[in-house]
Amino acid sequence: MRINRKRLEESMERLGRIGQTPAGGLTRLALSDDDRRGRDLLVGWMREAGLSVTVDRMGNIFGLRAGSAALPAVMMGSHADSVPTGGKYDGQLGVLCALEVIRSLDDGRVRTRHPVAMAIFTNEEGARFQPAMIGSGVMAGKIPLEDAYTARDKDGLRLGDELERIGYLGAEPCIPRPFHAYLELHIEQGPILEEAQLPIGVVEGIVGIAWSRITFHGVQDHAGPTPMRIRHDALVAAAEVVGGVRRIAALMGGDFVSTVGRLDIAPGIPNAIPGRVVMSVDFRDPEDAKLDRARPMLDALVQEAAAREGVRHEIDHYWRVPRTPFDTGVVAAVETAARDLGVGHRRMLSGAGHDAQYMAAICPTGMVFVPSRAGRSHCEEEFTPMDDVEHGANVLLGACASLAES
Amino acid sequence: MRINRKRLEESMERLGRIGQTPAGGLTRLALSDDDRRGRDLLVGWMREAGLSVTVDRMGNIFGLRAGSAALPAVMMGSHADSVPTGGKYDGQLGVLCALEVIRSLDDGRVRTRHPVAMAIFTNEEGARFQPAMIGSGVMAGKIPLEDAYTARDKDGLRLGDELERIGYLGAEPCIPRPFHAYLELHIEQGPILEEAQLPIGVVEGIVGIAWSRITFHGVQDHAGPTPMRIRHDALVAAAEVVGGVRRIAALMGGDFVSTVGRLDIAPGIPNAIPGRVVMSVDFRDPEDAKLDRARPMLDALVQEAAAREGVRHEIDHYWRVPRTPFDTGVVAAVETAARDLGVGHRRMLSGAGHDAQYMAAICPTGMVFVPSRAGRSHCEEEFTPMDDVEHGANVLLGACASLAES
Repeated sequence: MRINRKRLEESMERLGRIGQTPAGGLTRLALSDDDRRGRDLLVGWMREAGLSVTVDRMGNIFGLRAGSAALPAVMMGSHADSVPTGGKYDGQLGVLCALEVIRSLDDGRVRTRHPVAMAIFTNEEGARFQPAMIGSGVMAGKIPLEDAYTARDKDGLRLGDELERIGYLGAEPCIPRPFHAYLELHIEQGPILEEAQLPIGVVEGIVGIAWSRITFHGVQDHAGPTPMRIRHDALVAAAEVVGGVRRIAALMGGDFVSTVGRLDIAPGIPNAIPGRVVMSVDFRDPEDAKLDRARPMLDALVQEAAAREGVRHEIDHYWRVPRTPFDTGVVAAVETAARDLGVGHRRMLSGAGHDAQYMAAICPTGMVFVPSRAGRSHCEEEFTPMDDVEHGANVLLGACASLAES
Repeated sequence: MRINRKRLEESMERLGRIGQTPAGGLTRLALSDDDRRGRDLLVGWMREAGLSVTVDRMGNIFGLRAGSAALPAVMMGSHADSVPTGGKYDGQLGVLCALEVIRSLDDGRVRTRHPVAMAIFTNEEGARFQPAMIGSGVMAGKIPLEDAYTARDKDGLRLGDELERIGYLGAEPCIPRPFHAYLELHIEQGPILEEAQLPIGVVEGIVGIAWSRITFHGVQDHAGPTPMRIRHDALVAAAEVVGGVRRIAALMGGDFVSTVGRLDIAPGIPNAIPGRVVMSVDFRDPEDAKLDRARPMLDALVQEAAAREGVRHEIDHYWRVPRTPFDTGVVAAVETAARDLGVGHRRMLSGAGHDAQYMAAICPTGMVFVPSRAGRSHCEEEFTPMDDVEHGANVLLGACASLAES
């Protein structure tokens, strides 16, 4: 049994047009009008495939294909939102491969023992609303529903209101449910598979992630007549932290990565001394202990920069996901599927967070990675060759089918 | 002859309500709906005062009070736009004091020899459209009208379209005209007058100003699975320049000031390595030679930061206004008016750019400064005591009346 490459490619093509950027990338922010259009298209396809579709209170979408026994389902899934000027593979590929697996089971008139299901999780990217992986996080009981509803985007719009506005505030409770297993196919978003020339990554777990929000309150003033000696410039302090965050990664070494991705200045005009800066810090490492060590280094860095510039500061370490090992049985099922298909593969860790990280808290979980050209993602150049996509979808099909019988 | 303090205070109160922020500051960006409302109120008052009102192709508003002879007018003026979360004095105070001088001439039934006029210039702040002082710059022949029309705000809206939208695209050509003199009252925006406990600054000229725009093009990628060794982060390079711009001011010493007020990141989310940063650099000094020396220092700084991080860069030194000395006769008229009133005053330079800087290119020009509490402006805390405002308006009246007879 194999997936239908042509059908999968056509679905990728059609979904990829919703929110497409002029350069061929994708901007489909969570709960935007384009997100609604993408969801509507997917729900239509899920219904055409005979799935019974439900939506929960976080806007997570589920489609169920009955099994021969009244047992918990094997769930496959990912997300359909993107970052701004992102790519057409991150998230959507996992959703479309899950759908393709179900369509292929239908083609083969396969009646699995366990039901097989697919999920589309809300706001995985954390680009519009923070934190990331919020839909799966609420479902896993790791994020309170009320906190998720009150998360606000840059314009102050509430996640709960936006869910309602686009018509995806569902009736189903968003709570942990018994699943037999959870499988997620995703692009690697790093260079390892391409460098090793392997089409499949058998993911053993996800690194730990720590997000912080730092605010500097300086003294907003005119850039002309304000002498240097009386300035308290929030951006000067923040810039020092950007450099320091880079140095922390060098000090920690190994696989530790650190990023300042966001830095908002008020008032943000050429001729005013910045009065306030809000910046993000993202730390990741396979070892939780290294994240624990990095945190006080960041605190010290921020305090020193604030003291030097004479500005007030706040640090909010608001999100932490520990290193997540996946289930040995599910990892083995993925590995076996790759071996049975005769495609090159290796075991690896994920450096990116995925909904699978929260799903692992409520059921046996594993992931299938496919390569990212030049290791690039969260950008318009994001690309995975169709041969690799086909291999990945077939591995997902094999793993799903075997787990659904076990 | 004295101005009417109560009437001036009431006008400040009423105009200050348009675009007022919750904290008591002002957000009235150029050519916004609030700018239109402010202009409408002012034009109404100007007509009530019997002025003949015209609007030119840059939306600059003029009101003329006839003199006894057919001679060039003594013009007073300033601007009515503000920075975001700015104050209620920067710009509007000069416009309202000009109006109050005219109302006071009416009260005293004074018939001046030269006509007396007032002007409200468009987009002085440069907060919404760059460069600053664009309305007076076009009138002085220093900025081509077409360049001004095609300036775009952050949302891509064109200045020309916004002028038309708010109904202030006038029919009069925006060209240099013969004026007998130009006088502008403005808050100091620095700490000198308050520190010296003097209510009046007799402004002898304006420092030189140089604005640059720097763009770094890095490689946008995922903040998780992208190893530190392959990163090209546009923000890391930009942050180095923020620190370097501060160091340039320390190296130059004296009255040199440097500011990075704007720094826009794409995509600007916590989990993407910044792919592009656009930042502003503002250098000012009383000596043009020091601005000339600072420019190659900035170029070297940007090149080194870009090379170190392996990112591409662009530098655009897009705006330069040389040090502007004011007319000795007009400066003397301001000084004499202050002396005749018996109020404390000193001669000084302006560290901020003003429409007077461009007006000085087409007619004899001078300015009256009043103190800024704690030297603060371009912020909601901007404040000038009403006693000082009254002194300033009376000095403006005295200088205007004497110049209109000369």
